Amino acid sequence: MQKVISFGEILMRLSPPGNLRFDQATSFNAVYGGGEFNAIASLANFGLKTEFVTAVPENALGDCVINTIRSVNVGCENILRQGDRLGLYFIEMGASVRSSNVIYDRAESSIAQIGTNNFDWAKIFKGATWFHWSGVTPAISQEAAGACLEAVKKASEMGLKISTDLNYRSKLWNYGKEPYDVMPELLQYSNVIIGDIDTARFMLKKDKIAPDYKNKDEVKQAFLELMEFLPNLDSIGMVFRESVNASHERIGGLLYNNNKLYSEKIRDVIPIVDRVGSGDAFMAGLLYGLLEFDENFQKTIEFATAACILKHSIFGDVNRVSKEEVINFIDNDGAAKVKR
Amino acid sequence: MQKVISFGEILMRLSPPGNLRFDQATSFNAVYGGGEFNAIASLANFGLKTEFVTAVPENALGDCVINTIRSVNVGCENILRQGDRLGLYFIEMGASVRSSNVIYDRAESSIAQIGTNNFDWAKIFKGATWFHWSGVTPAISQEAAGACLEAVKKASEMGLKISTDLNYRSKLWNYGKEPYDVMPELLQYSNVIIGDIDTARFMLKKDKIAPDYKNKDEVKQAFLELMEFLPNLDSIGMVFRESVNASHERIGGLLYNNNKLYSEKIRDVIPIVDRVGSGDAFMAGLLYGLLEFDENFQKTIEFATAACILKHSIFGDVNRVSKEEVINFIDNDGAAKVKR
Amino acid sequence: MQKVISFGEILMRLSPPGNLRFDQATSFNAVYGGGEFNAIASLANFGLKTEFVTAVPENALGDCVINTIRSVNVGCENILRQGDRLGLYFIEMGASVRSSNVIYDRAESSIAQIGTNNFDWAKIFKGATWFHWSGVTPAISQEAAGACLEAVKKASEMGLKISTDLNYRSKLWNYGKEPYDVMPELLQYSNVIIGDIDTARFMLKKDKIAPDYKNKDEVKQAFLELMEFLPNLDSIGMVFRESVNASHERIGGLLYNNNKLYSEKIRDVIPIVDRVGSGDAFMAGLLYGLLEFDENFQKTIEFATAACILKHSIFGDVNRVSKEEVINFIDNDGAAKVKR
Amino acid sequence: MQKVISFGEILMRLSPPGNLRFDQATSFNAVYGGGEFNAIASLANFGLKTEFVTAVPENALGDCVINTIRSVNVGCENILRQGDRLGLYFIEMGASVRSSNVIYDRAESSIAQIGTNNFDWAKIFKGATWFHWSGVTPAISQEAAGACLEAVKKASEMGLKISTDLNYRSKLWNYGKEPYDVMPELLQYSNVIIGDIDTARFMLKKDKIAPDYKNKDEVKQAFLELMEFLPNLDSIGMVFRESVNASHERIGGLLYNNNKLYSEKIRDVIPIVDRVGSGDAFMAGLLYGLLEFDENFQKTIEFATAACILKHSIFGDVNRVSKEEVINFIDNDGAAKVKR
Amino acid sequence: MQKVISFGEILMRLSPPGNLRFDQATSFNAVYGGGEFNAIASLANFGLKTEFVTAVPENALGDCVINTIRSVNVGCENILRQGDRLGLYFIEMGASVRSSNVIYDRAESSIAQIGTNNFDWAKIFKGATWFHWSGVTPAISQEAAGACLEAVKKASEMGLKISTDLNYRSKLWNYGKEPYDVMPELLQYSNVIIGDIDTARFMLKKDKIAPDYKNKDEVKQAFLELMEFLPNLDSIGMVFRESVNASHERIGGLLYNNNKLYSEKIRDVIPIVDRVGSGDAFMAGLLYGLLEFDENFQKTIEFATAACILKHSIFGDVNRVSKEEVINFIDNDGAAKVKR
Amino acid sequence: MQKVISFGEILMRLSPPGNLRFDQATSFNAVYGGGEFNAIASLANFGLKTEFVTAVPENALGDCVINTIRSVNVGCENILRQGDRLGLYFIEMGASVRSSNVIYDRAESSIAQIGTNNFDWAKIFKGATWFHWSGVTPAISQEAAGACLEAVKKASEMGLKISTDLNYRSKLWNYGKEPYDVMPELLQYSNVIIGDIDTARFMLKKDKIAPDYKNKDEVKQAFLELMEFLPNLDSIGMVFRESVNASHERIGGLLYNNNKLYSEKIRDVIPIVDRVGSGDAFMAGLLYGLLEFDENFQKTIEFATAACILKHSIFGDVNRVSKEEVINFIDNDGAAKVKR
Repeated sequence: MQKVISFGEILMRLSPPGNLRFDQATSFNAVYGGGEFNAIASLANFGLKTEFVTAVPENALGDCVINTIRSVNVGCENILRQGDRLGLYFIEMGASVRSSNVIYDRAESSIAQIGTNNFDWAKIFKGATWFHWSGVTPAISQEAAGACLEAVKKASEMGLKISTDLNYRSKLWNYGKEPYDVMPELLQYSNVIIGDIDTARFMLKKDKIAPDYKNKDEVKQAFLELMEFLPNLDSIGMVFRESVNASHERIGGLLYNNNKLYSEKIRDVIPIVDRVGSGDAFMAGLLYGLLEFDENFQKTIEFATAACILKHSIFGDVNRVSKEEVINFIDNDGAAKVKR
Repeated sequence: MQKVISFGEILMRLSPPGNLRFDQATSFNAVYGGGEFNAIASLANFGLKTEFVTAVPENALGDCVINTIRSVNVGCENILRQGDRLGLYFIEMGASVRSSNVIYDRAESSIAQIGTNNFDWAKIFKGATWFHWSGVTPAISQEAAGACLEAVKKASEMGLKISTDLNYRSKLWNYGKEPYDVMPELLQYSNVIIGDIDTARFMLKKDKIAPDYKNKDEVKQAFLELMEFLPNLDSIGMVFRESVNASHERIGGLLYNNNKLYSEKIRDVIPIVDRVGSGDAFMAGLLYGLLEFDENFQKTIEFATAACILKHSIFGDVNRVSKEEVINFIDNDGAAKVKR
Repeated sequence: MQKVISFGEILMRLSPPGNLRFDQATSFNAVYGGGEFNAIASLANFGLKTEFVTAVPENALGDCVINTIRSVNVGCENILRQGDRLGLYFIEMGASVRSSNVIYDRAESSIAQIGTNNFDWAKIFKGATWFHWSGVTPAISQEAAGACLEAVKKASEMGLKISTDLNYRSKLWNYGKEPYDVMPELLQYSNVIIGDIDTARFMLKKDKIAPDYKNKDEVKQAFLELMEFLPNLDSIGMVFRESVNASHERIGGLLYNNNKLYSEKIRDVIPIVDRVGSGDAFMAGLLYGLLEFDENFQKTIEFATAACILKHSIFGDVNRVSKEEVINFIDNDGAAKVKR
Repeated sequence: MQKVISFGEILMRLSPPGNLRFDQATSFNAVYGGGEFNAIASLANFGLKTEFVTAVPENALGDCVINTIRSVNVGCENILRQGDRLGLYFIEMGASVRSSNVIYDRAESSIAQIGTNNFDWAKIFKGATWFHWSGVTPAISQEAAGACLEAVKKASEMGLKISTDLNYRSKLWNYGKEPYDVMPELLQYSNVIIGDIDTARFMLKKDKIAPDYKNKDEVKQAFLELMEFLPNLDSIGMVFRESVNASHERIGGLLYNNNKLYSEKIRDVIPIVDRVGSGDAFMAGLLYGLLEFDENFQKTIEFATAACILKHSIFGDVNRVSKEEVINFIDNDGAAKVKR
Repeated sequence: MQKVISFGEILMRLSPPGNLRFDQATSFNAVYGGGEFNAIASLANFGLKTEFVTAVPENALGDCVINTIRSVNVGCENILRQGDRLGLYFIEMGASVRSSNVIYDRAESSIAQIGTNNFDWAKIFKGATWFHWSGVTPAISQEAAGACLEAVKKASEMGLKISTDLNYRSKLWNYGKEPYDVMPELLQYSNVIIGDIDTARFMLKKDKIAPDYKNKDEVKQAFLELMEFLPNLDSIGMVFRESVNASHERIGGLLYNNNKLYSEKIRDVIPIVDRVGSGDAFMAGLLYGLLEFDENFQKTIEFATAACILKHSIFGDVNRVSKEEVINFIDNDGAAKVKR
Repeated sequence: MQKVISFGEILMRLSPPGNLRFDQATSFNAVYGGGEFNAIASLANFGLKTEFVTAVPENALGDCVINTIRSVNVGCENILRQGDRLGLYFIEMGASVRSSNVIYDRAESSIAQIGTNNFDWAKIFKGATWFHWSGVTPAISQEAAGACLEAVKKASEMGLKISTDLNYRSKLWNYGKEPYDVMPELLQYSNVIIGDIDTARFMLKKDKIAPDYKNKDEVKQAFLELMEFLPNLDSIGMVFRESVNASHERIGGLLYNNNKLYSEKIRDVIPIVDRVGSGDAFMAGLLYGLLEFDENFQKTIEFATAACILKHSIFGDVNRVSKEEVINFIDNDGAAKVKR
């Protein structure tokens, strides 16, 4: 059985109830999530064996994170308890014509302060077949980037496949390095990435090309070029996302593999309950397909896109749907009848 | 003045708040409802004299049911207090692309355990003009089916008109009988039914015909054929319902009477607050029209369809709208302006 | 720096949570608002210096009103504490096909009982450049209409510009006067009004003309005619609003100035969080543009319409958006992406 | 079987959640209650046949009142729908050292505006054995006092027993009459009253005597004197209440009948959930005992005092306890073990 | 390291918010718990390795139970997914003078329907050192009693120590057996029991002796006698509990071992947040002491009593306190200062 | 009229609802407070003119702080908008035998990062008569301590009286300085301090003396000694606080002035709603008395102690009571009757 390991940060997310603005809130709903965790938790929901590696402070909020990891059936045997604070962020949920707003408060968090050699990667990867990380982690701090490099080297050495969600967040890169200083070395080890073409190019210090995603040949050509920069890369996935407004998106998906481009049609998603984590849900769907669908890449991109769409209907960061629910969605082409 | 009696089960319905999934809920909203009660409560809201007959346990939850019946001005003078438990069900409310899920927990409820001759139907029907029941009740248990038969026989004998919502729920028929073993005898007494054509045919042990509901002649022919099997039948009503997703339906209505087919146009209903009980709201609208609109069948199907549509905007099982609100909806063709 | 004064009533608004009907509510959400206050609070959010003049009772609810005024950075130095009760209203929020319902309970409120010469308008207007009032206030009582007249006379004498939201509420005019008995004198002093053409005509005791708002020449002609009745009038603004249902409106805007008609396109607003106060948000946007956009009337009507649309996404009466958010909305033509 | 009629006002009560102060509340919990209704609803809970007579406006809030009456199994066949507004009051619940605060907003309510001969008392009292009213009603308005007088005269004429809760609220008597102008005539018809000695004396325009309630002889003498002023009076009941703080009271009870004084010991009640309506709960307990306990006055005062104490543990105005629960409380002397 | 296994049922517990009565509740708070699980979860909180064995249905509510087990770090590798329903119960939380009320709805639950040989006890007990069960399980059904017997035999054979909470619930024993038909055989294997003397005697079919718990000699003598009936028994623990009212208890503890009686003083516990599971918390404290405190029985009874007391301050069934918090409570003798 | 200025940090406080533990919370209640702000807001409630000086980030959470300051009628004209984050803390509210727990997360907050000369103290103090600060601020960072020193020097120079709450929080002093390195210089300027004797001695680097607070002579002697170290000191106030458990404290007060010791008796406070900020409430009461009670020191300590006690009944950090409510508490010696 496949076992997937992931590494990254879990944040407390605080959001005003319903559609209230920050200055109307007398309480905040709290969930715990983060890109890499969201992906791995979704894989656990699909039935895979998983484990999450992170660092949290030795206090009750750190305990809350670990309870959360446990409750979704993700392994938590290799979590560091250190550092002074849990990273957190505030999000004001948008509605129709009003945007969501995010205020990050994650500086100096436990994971930003991990030093070298804190994780015993050889022990962590024992028995595992896949390692997943994202571009958020090397953006956090020099130390976090260093831990990423240790991890991908050891994973590669031990024969695990490696996937990466590029996830560029400009605000995070503020310890004196740019993504193109750090990511190219890290991405050498990746077998699968998700992200759009220009984000990948930026991280590899290539010019923007602003591809027309409706032109399949152009897109294939652009993906092909990316493959050339990254020798171990097999597959590139990408969510096609158009934001009509805060309650309405249009979502499709692309998967490039072995010089073929697979795509899933674009669907309207309306109304949106919570779009946070929908990219991570896509990532999990993609990994699940690559791991379990015997190189059926068309089925894989359909599954990944459906998983991404379903996430929009679920409160919180994690895609709380089973494999059966994703397949049921595909089989009914999204018509959501009462199950009774 | 018309007095309508109904008989059936009331369940406690437990649903996670808002759009939460079952495993995110730390509380459940509770309402009390059931197909037959929902219909009769809606008739009470329209201003008719009504009474509901059921059995509930002799405990505080049974009291809650009775308070609920009373609070919506439905009579509750003939309710049995017996049995060990109140039937209940859990519903996770879907949102946009995600379906609602129902978990029934109604086995061994008070009404499933009623014996023979527990209800004094002659007393119950005294002064009443109409009796309404649904296909859910005979599905619950042999005893419940027996009570139904006692009721329809006595109602018929005492000259009441009888209506039936076919309401086929396959999971409930598990006491060794199939609907076609039980329903044909019961339906002989019905003057009005609602349900789609193939459900009716299945209950009468006829082949499926999968009619094209957009072909009026075909539909009329199919209804005509049903009339032939059920000698007392005057009218057949049916909700036309297309589920776009969990937040969006398309609703219209059909009424067949005396070889004429009356229909109300299809409207988009978006967003949906709560679709549970919308069929019961249609039933109530239909009965109200048949009782009060002097054989104006077109007005009747318009009223029933509008009532059904309005129910989608109301939390809980019961259609909490007045006759005036239904008429106002029709008059404004659904444009819902602030009333002030 | 501009300083805007407004005068009117603030009510406690009580609404059942979410989409519940009045008879389902075991609690009511409470906010404090009123047309004139909503407009002035929105101007404060845009960064102008403001003050609100009203009367509230000398009890804890009066204190709540004053805390509310203060918390949105509106001045409250000239508020009378008198009278027995705070006006209030109940609103049941509609959803999709179901209308919102309003029950007013504002009779005999503090402001309805103010006498003559209670406000020292010369002191209030000192240092101010603009005075805003609405047609609600003279509708409340003879005394309130008298205070309005004192205010507009003094404001005019002291050289302030004056704006008026016509805001006709038929239910309020019940102290023996009709709008056309009172409003013509009051409106003589107005430099800016908002309201539709037939409302203005009715208040001026002119015949209804039911203009076709899609015919620009016809509309211009109608506005021109209005200008003739009101010698000080410079500008007329109007929200174009079409209610598809309680969750969906179509909103555009018109501004007439110096014989030119400026308009902003119609946009779909779906879903609606809370439409109360959206006209006041338009008023505030219009005033802000007139005060700050150097006679750029096209920019003004775009700003006013965008402010009005954004209000629909915000719970409560007041448009809690900044100038930057309105501009951002215009720049992105309403596509509400997550800000992070 | 006994049937008890009561007459008075039902108010909407709005209270901030938990222990919040008015200026911290963003919502208010809503219940519907009033002294006379609270008493009658409690009697219905004890199993008696009851009916409540009042006036409420013809709007959705009036409907809420009627649903409330119905849901507790009190008859509502003779309620007037008239007038503009439902009376309401705001209450900030105290906690430990902080007092509860009440803001009344009941002026010009439906019941304050009832005219003469609006109620058909002969029809209302048909089949009834007891009539209950309180000193709140004649305090509301001249019209309400007039209706009270009509009621007691007719009740007396038709042979009903009459009980009165003196309930002096100084703030309400503001239509130009004092209690001693109105109450003496009304009280002539009373068979039972509850209230303390000096309240009764004040209403009868006698001097205060400030009795020492621990001196039984003094108290008996004082009660005896009261009997002399009121020829039909049989019994006088009184709650002995000492407020330690907002979460802690000490409650006992006294009943005077036929020159004998019966008392129930004083118990500590801590913590208090909601003390509103505890006097009405005492009243109901007293009436129940007088009606059902075969002149066992000691049992009656024990039952009334226990009912009063239990009310302190129940949110809302109405004492939602059964007869069995009151008796169980007495039998266990207040030790509240889990029932399972 | 010690590993403790437990076996029993987990129920969904539904309780009205705060102090509301059942008929006031529009929602129910939901937690998952049961005597044996509460004890084992508390041991996991104290830091021991644990596992819980049970049966839950193959639906979303069964998933919720398993998530709950996981989230508190209890093993769940040997849980059966079978049967139609999750047992549940409703509890109305008492307050001060009003009792809590429980309505059980656990008939025909998954665990009541387990057959023979469904659990592989040899595999389950591998590596474990202790097995804990309670008298609730054999009361549920013949099958559940049979599974208990299989378990204790295998546990004993494999050298595990066995503890039992007697937990007599008369309402559950309704499958034709009495406790004294079933428990004596089961208890032969127990090394530790908790329960009061007369409950133990009843289960062993001995006469009641109603011991005076303040007389140490009498109590010792009674415990000694119990030891004689149960050859493997080492220790007997007992909570001393006096219910002043629903918000106030007086709690102490007794532990009998090797003819010595250890006791912890009685403390007032006021106010009580939630007393459900406090006996299980005592059980867990006792086991923890017996496992970890090197035969320091005085320290053990102090720890168990403190754990029991602390549970009263925690919402839900499980004692969510750490070992450090229990010790801190003892060290400060219950004075709960803010930790900052 | 007196105008009081204060300077310090405002934190967002996040607490699980009711009595839930951190790991049970799915939401957190949010209020904004801090020792110095709590004191000044309480003074504003008592009717004094006040202003608060602080630094908050230029984001929506900073806006929330400013709205909070405004809403309680405290001036906010001199607040810096700078720095990356708002300090925050999490508090789990204890109940009965369980302690409250605090997790601070205030490192690197806006105020910790203020530089030198950022505040124009001369402008700030213009027209003011009193400056209040606490020992928390110099503990935050070198910069914050520097700003304190600037402030007290300028305040002293401009003739303001200065008060200080010693408020020793050991966890905060971690920038390389100890309180006795910093506080002695700062305290030279104080006219009034509150704090217990050994805290003061520690900050002045004197030995602990552990005075017996029940021995008045010993206490007077100890206060006298403190006066000698601080030449400008006039008065020392102190809350006498004994924590029985998390729901029960015993509170009294001491005030030393001009070699006289004034005291207020100790009262039981039970149950406690929220004890956070009760020391600040005492501080505010003390200042109010010193400013307004014409050297009536006995009245001052009674007022301060009563204010402190009342705070325990109010949710949130700020003592939301008026001067009249404090006096009413004193006049009734704490018996909290309903006000109506």
